Amino acid sequence: MSKEFKFEIKVYYEDTDAGGIVYYSNYLNFLERARTEMIEMVGLSNKQLLEENKTLIIVKSCNIEYISSAKLEDKITIYSSIESFSKASFVIVQNIKKDNALIVKAKLKLVTVNQEGRPIKIPSVLEKKLSIN
Amino acid sequence: MSKEFKFEIKVYYEDTDAGGIVYYSNYLNFLERARTEMIEMVGLSNKQLLEENKTLIIVKSCNIEYISSAKLEDKITIYSSIESFSKASFVIVQNIKKDNALIVKAKLKLVTVNQEGRPIKIPSVLEKKLSIN
Amino acid sequence: MSKEFKFEIKVYYEDTDAGGIVYYSNYLNFLERARTEMIEMVGLSNKQLLEENKTLIIVKSCNIEYISSAKLEDKITIYSSIESFSKASFVIVQNIKKDNALIVKAKLKLVTVNQEGRPIKIPSVLEKKLSIN
Amino acid sequence: MSKEFKFEIKVYYEDTDAGGIVYYSNYLNFLERARTEMIEMVGLSNKQLLEENKTLIIVKSCNIEYISSAKLEDKITIYSSIESFSKASFVIVQNIKKDNALIVKAKLKLVTVNQEGRPIKIPSVLEKKLSIN
Repeated sequence: MSKEFKFEIKVYYEDTDAGGIVYYSNYLNFLERARTEMIEMVGLSNKQLLEENKTLIIVKSCNIEYISSAKLEDKITIYSSIESFSKASFVIVQNIKKDNALIVKAKLKLVTVNQEGRPIKIPSVLEKKLSIN
Repeated sequence: MSKEFKFEIKVYYEDTDAGGIVYYSNYLNFLERARTEMIEMVGLSNKQLLEENKTLIIVKSCNIEYISSAKLEDKITIYSSIESFSKASFVIVQNIKKDNALIVKAKLKLVTVNQEGRPIKIPSVLEKKLSIN
Repeated sequence: MSKEFKFEIKVYYEDTDAGGIVYYSNYLNFLERARTEMIEMVGLSNKQLLEENKTLIIVKSCNIEYISSAKLEDKITIYSSIESFSKASFVIVQNIKKDNALIVKAKLKLVTVNQEGRPIKIPSVLEKKLSIN
Repeated sequence: MSKEFKFEIKVYYEDTDAGGIVYYSNYLNFLERARTEMIEMVGLSNKQLLEENKTLIIVKSCNIEYISSAKLEDKITIYSSIESFSKASFVIVQNIKKDNALIVKAKLKLVTVNQEGRPIKIPSVLEKKLSIN
């Protein structure tokens, strides 16, 4: 397991739907923001990975479970940790909490690819910085 | 297995991201449009289910696998079929194809709830119409 | 004035917000879909304009007035007509109606640019096809 | 003129399109986030206005000019100030800057309505708190 990264988001009108709660696909936007911030927290960025390492991180699969829902102007926190690294992919667990109650659980497989979309080895700087120690 | 329902979508600028392909959460929007159309194809609607049956359909979980990607102005087709019905939930398989090649595979668990968000029995009209004979 | 182009859209959950109506920025998505379809109706496409004419159409300004609102599963129609052409830009009027009542009025200035974002002359094929005779 | 309210946003993948820049409607999302934060900065909230004052703020019109564009991972700042108050509406100017250069200029007319959508007087607490002195 890697470090745990924490990122807070406020729910705006754009995130909600006519049911009065956050629309189900918008949680995936939140998860992606949290992954971007995780990469920035360790001193890297998607832009830098692309320019210096010719590497893009893409989502290969996403398993998401909706336990409860977030509403307008709720403050929610996303907890992200890398579960495992493979050669050209890694698995991340991302949990969303509201007032310390778990509302969304997600596990995603991410793949590192080059600009033609071919899988390439995870840049060692990325793996090293996201790992513990 | 239920009937298979087919729905075609064109990819617009709003659906894409700076990677030049459809943003990963937007496929969930496409899946939801296809489910709405599926319900309309059998002569029902979300509005009617809400008004006449006090029933909302919400997503409990979504497992989505990204095999390949769709680009600007691609025409993609979503194939939806109900895999199984339980008392207050059903499982739907939704596959997205581009030029007959599978690009996204998804399986979702949907739950029928009342306006307070409590699980309630699937309206029999809905189960009957979505099932094969 | 050019021909009038007509495009129908259904309102899905993703388009609405917690107020129960279409979120105000999503009408701009609808307008862009209608402009893409307008270009397809005259036998062109954004992709083709980019590949054959090295031309992108970008929005320079948008004046939009919200008169009434659309709700979940409403069917709305967008009427688009080019008001005037300049050397490297054109003005389009786009009105959205629901059951024949005007709900949104918009006027946009669009600019044709090259891949570096510099204004370039409107491709004559585009101007010709969008104009009346 | 009111005080000037400042709000910073980072551009994520979800905000961009295949042109590599922020999609034109997404700036309206940013503007709405900035308005929500403006209301929070003066100690109020949309939720509170709804519950205590039975008041919703809706957009009546939006004039937006796109001068330059924001890209992935850009940090942009939105400057908001109320230009004038009427009985049941107010005009807000919202400018977006990137590295101190103006990239988007917008002027919106907002209307205060009750839950049935009828215009009602601006709650005095809101007008007072957003005004200078």
